[in-house]
Amino acid sequence: MRDVAIVGIGQTPVGELWDKSLRQLGHDAIRAAMADAGIEQADALFVGNMLSGELAGQEHLAALLADFLGMRGIEAAKIEAACASGAAALRVGTMAVASGMADVVIVAGVEKMTDTLPAETTAGLALAADQEYEVAEGATFLALNAMLMRRYMHEYDIPHSAFAPFPVNAHHNARGNPNAMFHMDISPARYEKAPVVAPPINVMDSSPICDGAAALVLVPARRAAEFGSGKRIVRIAASASAVDTLAVHDRGDPLFLEAAYLSSHKAYALAGVTPADIDFFELHDAFSIMSVLSLEACGFAQRGRGVDLGESGAITLSGRLPITTLGGLKARGHPVGATGVYQALEVVQQLRGDAGPNQLAHAHIGMAQNIGGSGATIVTHILIGED
Amino acid sequence: MRDVAIVGIGQTPVGELWDKSLRQLGHDAIRAAMADAGIEQADALFVGNMLSGELAGQEHLAALLADFLGMRGIEAAKIEAACASGAAALRVGTMAVASGMADVVIVAGVEKMTDTLPAETTAGLALAADQEYEVAEGATFLALNAMLMRRYMHEYDIPHSAFAPFPVNAHHNARGNPNAMFHMDISPARYEKAPVVAPPINVMDSSPICDGAAALVLVPARRAAEFGSGKRIVRIAASASAVDTLAVHDRGDPLFLEAAYLSSHKAYALAGVTPADIDFFELHDAFSIMSVLSLEACGFAQRGRGVDLGESGAITLSGRLPITTLGGLKARGHPVGATGVYQALEVVQQLRGDAGPNQLAHAHIGMAQNIGGSGATIVTHILIGED
Repeated sequence: MRDVAIVGIGQTPVGELWDKSLRQLGHDAIRAAMADAGIEQADALFVGNMLSGELAGQEHLAALLADFLGMRGIEAAKIEAACASGAAALRVGTMAVASGMADVVIVAGVEKMTDTLPAETTAGLALAADQEYEVAEGATFLALNAMLMRRYMHEYDIPHSAFAPFPVNAHHNARGNPNAMFHMDISPARYEKAPVVAPPINVMDSSPICDGAAALVLVPARRAAEFGSGKRIVRIAASASAVDTLAVHDRGDPLFLEAAYLSSHKAYALAGVTPADIDFFELHDAFSIMSVLSLEACGFAQRGRGVDLGESGAITLSGRLPITTLGGLKARGHPVGATGVYQALEVVQQLRGDAGPNQLAHAHIGMAQNIGGSGATIVTHILIGED
Repeated sequence: MRDVAIVGIGQTPVGELWDKSLRQLGHDAIRAAMADAGIEQADALFVGNMLSGELAGQEHLAALLADFLGMRGIEAAKIEAACASGAAALRVGTMAVASGMADVVIVAGVEKMTDTLPAETTAGLALAADQEYEVAEGATFLALNAMLMRRYMHEYDIPHSAFAPFPVNAHHNARGNPNAMFHMDISPARYEKAPVVAPPINVMDSSPICDGAAALVLVPARRAAEFGSGKRIVRIAASASAVDTLAVHDRGDPLFLEAAYLSSHKAYALAGVTPADIDFFELHDAFSIMSVLSLEACGFAQRGRGVDLGESGAITLSGRLPITTLGGLKARGHPVGATGVYQALEVVQQLRGDAGPNQLAHAHIGMAQNIGGSGATIVTHILIGED
């Protein structure tokens, strides 16, 4: 098995991009990543996307993008694992290079969610839940996460205000990211006064519906120096994935993300690290409650104490475990199938020292975790900057 | 890179399976493959599927199947490449084992197309074409293939009747396959009298809309003897994929399947064989014209002469190059995202000597080719039975 390195990154801004089609978004991110890596051609393109068929009337998306990029003849396939599609595609790209079946692989994530009516987009997102046992009962992801948050608050006697540091931190960090969707700070007071969407979840607990695309170029690590423009080489030290039940009600303990535990601990073993070695963590803050559950399952906090990492300031750029360092899903935005690629890309930005005003003082080992559904697919990557 | 072997196969019958849900179909095929391989657990599940979101209201399908199978904790992802999704999933599964990132991998293909109205299913299939430049003009795959067939007949002065041997052979072979959708012979006269759907394509040129699921178990070749029940071990000697333009009108020569040429010739090189070494070929006869174009691009016939292989009887079970030996897409059926897995599975059946009344006298090297869209994604596998 060959070690794999990331030698190119590219992204579009995240937002309501009504002037850009799905294929244009993918094209722009991929061309930027190719330019960053200094390549004109690739062997394969793996595209993370969840809803191109439902929202854009386009399946066969990976072949379309290869065509639109003028890269006929290469391999192309779309990878779907709901909101974890991006990291699942990164995992497949890693396999392609690690196996020797491809040398230069582009992994892209792309999603276009704002060209449809909000109700259509919400219905599309619900396709990630169990159709027969959740969706048919009217459950949306908002509703499922609201039940998880309510249960958490009840079990551990936690007030809603204890979650404030997570969106406050995300919005603060997004101000330093020109590609983020939102560029305004929010205060704890504003968080608490935000309109309630599905109690106890309010608007500021929820990541936005948006468009965006991000891309990475993967090559064998031993050839990494041939690519890029002298930037620090980033090695994929671990890639791990695990699934749990699709339906939340099928879990013995809905407040423990078993798949996050499994994929993160497998990743720690592969990379030869412990949670204490992780310098920063791009986690999946689709809703505030998911941040807390992820931190607990990955071993960064005891159960019921994940909120403490917010209160103590540990999650900020100058804290012990910075999270969502460029805005996270909450404020950079959550173009679902693209999110996992944005997360890995942002880890690379930090490891390269290219995170601008948000650059961490110490960024050597970064972790990204992408969650599909309400914790049914969880993919964890650990990236290490080579010295 | 590790060699990869197929040590388990499982399938459901193909047909209008109104009494089985999407998840049940996937479950049944996967459990059968696991039983065949003698395994109770796996590391990963890759599912080829095109239309679960559009036709069954279910994305996140791979995690759902893992959940329904009671295999929480494993990795799972869905692979989509239109009608080539099945072979694309097989390719990802091969990468997973070849890279060492997984040891025991299940590759499944599943599709449920008959629970929706025919117009809805047809609209779903059209998502594989270019949304902006083909679908928006009203093109369906039937229409696109009809134009290809018309052009072929015009360019080479070929009568429609010259295509008869392909569906006649497929229907004949399906009679020996208990899992095939159709079990009746058709005559050349019946072929010519079949109702025209989109001239010159008639019903007998067209593969049926149907449901079905098939699955394979992949392991490292050096460990293959630990699995299965003493059946002949089948090695994946080559796996190759290539894309062409999504829209047919973007191709300089629409009668040459460039992606079939590229993927088949890459596969020949990987396996160290020539077309003359291929004992039989499970090709993608979604429409009669696709069989002919595939044979020509893969080097089995000169351009404009692919129909000769039908006329000469070369494609029959006793011919020089048997094709669609268990019914093909035309008569076994074409549950789109599952088809590529059925094709590989049938190659394994032949290589194992388990093809029943359709068993070939000489089956040592078999090829399978899965086509997405009107030739935009083409995946070729060459399987070899170990001595």
